Amino acid sequence: MVTSSGRDGDFVDARVVRTRNDVLATTLRILVNEGREAVTHNYVASEAGYSRATVYKHWPSKNDLLYDAFSWLRDMPHHAPTGDVRHDLIAELIAFRTAISEHHLDRLLAVLAEMSSSSAQLAQIRDEMVRNGEAPQRALLATITHGDELEAASLMLSGFVSTAAMMHDSLPSDELITTAVDLVLTGISGAK
Amino acid sequence: MVTSSGRDGDFVDARVVRTRNDVLATTLRILVNEGREAVTHNYVASEAGYSRATVYKHWPSKNDLLYDAFSWLRDMPHHAPTGDVRHDLIAELIAFRTAISEHHLDRLLAVLAEMSSSSAQLAQIRDEMVRNGEAPQRALLATITHGDELEAASLMLSGFVSTAAMMHDSLPSDELITTAVDLVLTGISGAK
Repeated sequence: MVTSSGRDGDFVDARVVRTRNDVLATTLRILVNEGREAVTHNYVASEAGYSRATVYKHWPSKNDLLYDAFSWLRDMPHHAPTGDVRHDLIAELIAFRTAISEHHLDRLLAVLAEMSSSSAQLAQIRDEMVRNGEAPQRALLATITHGDELEAASLMLSGFVSTAAMMHDSLPSDELITTAVDLVLTGISGAK
Repeated sequence: MVTSSGRDGDFVDARVVRTRNDVLATTLRILVNEGREAVTHNYVASEAGYSRATVYKHWPSKNDLLYDAFSWLRDMPHHAPTGDVRHDLIAELIAFRTAISEHHLDRLLAVLAEMSSSSAQLAQIRDEMVRNGEAPQRALLATITHGDELEAASLMLSGFVSTAAMMHDSLPSDELITTAVDLVLTGISGAK
């Protein structure tokens, strides 16, 4: 993996950063467009415009490459909260939908879900991505409920968007997202 | 693929059925335990106890093998409805959870979600599995709501169980399933 020591010195030089960005972006692009089996050191090197030796040097195994590519992607943009829980929940789910449509996050999550069963390293990345991804939504829900109800509401709202994308190959409209949020919010206030 | 014509005649003989069952069960077992890349004609043949030629003859490509294996699995057991919507929804989600824990349905769905982007054949199987899998739950919800609310409620309930399994590596307890169903039912009746 690329560390803070570049090949030519003890500092991160611009060339190392550029190499890293090029190779990891290429890895994700191949993963999303051609599937996991297409990700090989040879193919990534050729598509990114680097030598195979460079890619092997920084990422000795395919898992290293996938691990860094997913890590690089980990911080997805979120909506800045306004304080209105309903509005903010809807905006969070729309941000999740945008990440799916712009970065094919659904396919990346499917790869992670599949590979996590055989790689503890990738399971860790998946857990961090899911935790970071769900944190804002969870924090919003935690202002109005707790315990099993918080757990169920959070799983239903993130599951709603990811299941639509991964299992139904469709992205929920703004209206459908609003309906889902309203069902959950009405359910929470009605259960009090 | 195995058809109604066995190698030795124009009828399905027991030997063909047995071969088919052995090979497809072995394919799913390898897929779940060792991942998609481990599924090769050679390995499936050797693990199932047949010649490589037999496996190639019936399933010329890896996709044929995966397609038939998923098709074979398509009909998951469901709960027999009692007429009590709340009780029946809870039982449906528990049946889904059981299919996940007994057949590793979550990993199989992750493989399907990933591969569906590059194989129209597997996308079709995924669509059928999802449609069949969600049909009873959808029919129950359709007795109390419709339109976007039906859509959102159905996606939230199936997404709740599959997201817990695929993204959080955990299966919801009976209590958590009950809480989710009650949130949705309260949300639906409160929205009237």
